[in-house]
Amino acid sequence: MLLRILELVGIAAFAASGALVGVTKRLDIFGVCVVGVFTGVGGGIVRDVLLGIHPPTALGSWPILGTAFGISLLVFYVHFAVHRLRREILVLDAVGMGLFASTGAVIALDHGAGPLASCLIGGTAAIGGGVLRDVLVNEVPLLLQKDLYAVPALIAAALVVAVSESGAPNNIALVVGTVFATTLRLLALWRHWSLPGPRIPE
Amino acid sequence: MLLRILELVGIAAFAASGALVGVTKRLDIFGVCVVGVFTGVGGGIVRDVLLGIHPPTALGSWPILGTAFGISLLVFYVHFAVHRLRREILVLDAVGMGLFASTGAVIALDHGAGPLASCLIGGTAAIGGGVLRDVLVNEVPLLLQKDLYAVPALIAAALVVAVSESGAPNNIALVVGTVFATTLRLLALWRHWSLPGPRIPE
Amino acid sequence: MLLRILELVGIAAFAASGALVGVTKRLDIFGVCVVGVFTGVGGGIVRDVLLGIHPPTALGSWPILGTAFGISLLVFYVHFAVHRLRREILVLDAVGMGLFASTGAVIALDHGAGPLASCLIGGTAAIGGGVLRDVLVNEVPLLLQKDLYAVPALIAAALVVAVSESGAPNNIALVVGTVFATTLRLLALWRHWSLPGPRIPE
Repeated sequence: MLLRILELVGIAAFAASGALVGVTKRLDIFGVCVVGVFTGVGGGIVRDVLLGIHPPTALGSWPILGTAFGISLLVFYVHFAVHRLRREILVLDAVGMGLFASTGAVIALDHGAGPLASCLIGGTAAIGGGVLRDVLVNEVPLLLQKDLYAVPALIAAALVVAVSESGAPNNIALVVGTVFATTLRLLALWRHWSLPGPRIPE
Repeated sequence: MLLRILELVGIAAFAASGALVGVTKRLDIFGVCVVGVFTGVGGGIVRDVLLGIHPPTALGSWPILGTAFGISLLVFYVHFAVHRLRREILVLDAVGMGLFASTGAVIALDHGAGPLASCLIGGTAAIGGGVLRDVLVNEVPLLLQKDLYAVPALIAAALVVAVSESGAPNNIALVVGTVFATTLRLLALWRHWSLPGPRIPE
Repeated sequence: MLLRILELVGIAAFAASGALVGVTKRLDIFGVCVVGVFTGVGGGIVRDVLLGIHPPTALGSWPILGTAFGISLLVFYVHFAVHRLRREILVLDAVGMGLFASTGAVIALDHGAGPLASCLIGGTAAIGGGVLRDVLVNEVPLLLQKDLYAVPALIAAALVVAVSESGAPNNIALVVGTVFATTLRLLALWRHWSLPGPRIPE
């Protein structure tokens, strides 16, 4: 139950970030909602396509689609207020990322994927929405450029796989993965940690 | 039979719009054909991937691929004439959009997708080709920016699902959906209807 | 066995080209590796999604992922040296392209796809990584613009399907397809063959 609510919180945060980008690109109301909804559910859809879950769960879920759509609509109308909440959205987004990475890995294991594939599918579920958002609005995906985002997602998925393979119940694996990824992401935001870029002489 | 012919008409119109964009971007003959074919069959491929139809129907169909490829080649060589036919292409494209949304929804229902998922998959089948086209040639997808395009597609798919769930035969559902979406799209083009954009002070 | 090694060589060449593009775009170390790995395994993943192989083979293979990741990391640190090896990378890339087109077609036939679909899926496996790379870094895919790249891939896949359908063992089909595509690609590079672009008056 708590998991279900946290999932919707994560989707809402993802959708808000997508809709904000849509507003910045001056898309119309439908475009803003499409980019918002896609950012919210895109990671889960890619996960399900890779695992052969047909049709992808998110496409048939009123709570998920309703949340993503409602938040996108809200952002379209009150984007000024939302801009002021950017910090809060970043925190919620970190929760969503950790949760998606962890649930993605568990779902992959449940569908018979091996440990390595489960790590990667968990990571993909966490970052897929953001990558789709940036491809749609014609930007080089932000998370490829700087910022510690995908690394916590991948580590969390690996943790979940390790804990789950060690025989512990999935719930414990989920909590460990989510808490770890969210904490690492928030620490990275707070301390401005980033990865090195290539050394290219000017 | 009529349905089959209309489907090829829709694919031809989609392919023509894709090939024209390819010419504008000065791609070579192969690039123009790839973008044209992808625009023609992309929506159906995404639909089939989401539904788990392997391999996607379009990839094994000579009539579909031949039509999309032939039209793209034609556009490559006589794009001046095609430019002058832009209005006619827009009308054919509206027919294709309505038809793809409707058949997409019926195919989704047939493959066991729920009502909500079937609406979205129908809508995706109708707009997928255009979105792939714009992502390939590195543009923000046109249909996210203005113009009533995806809204008629989604409404048509919803109509088809409602009619079909009410127990009416699929053929009637298809006709209702296609006629509705095409009419709404043509009205929107004729009256220059569009959706509101975000209010951002200059 | 030789096939397995050649496959890794091809993936390494693809990954190197992807990582080089990432360095040019000044992505951070993680972004460079993601683009490199995606370019290396992207074609195979798209192939598997189209054929309904879940989860895609590459996602569960340590040798494949390790090769793609290791090469990307190497390119990140020694990209100057790699730039000087551009000619060698182009040759390896041609081998990889021919091999992916041929194995893709054989795998598609094995999974029950028809001849036409197998050609296209083989071609997709060969060019998918490069297209994903260019979409990720926000460029119009290079292979749509000039250069004989996808044409040899498609012809090779068609050859493989023809040889295999004629009853010859798959190994022979693979060798014929790979040698043909690689040779044609190298000839095209050497003689600067390219396809015509659209005639647009200035």
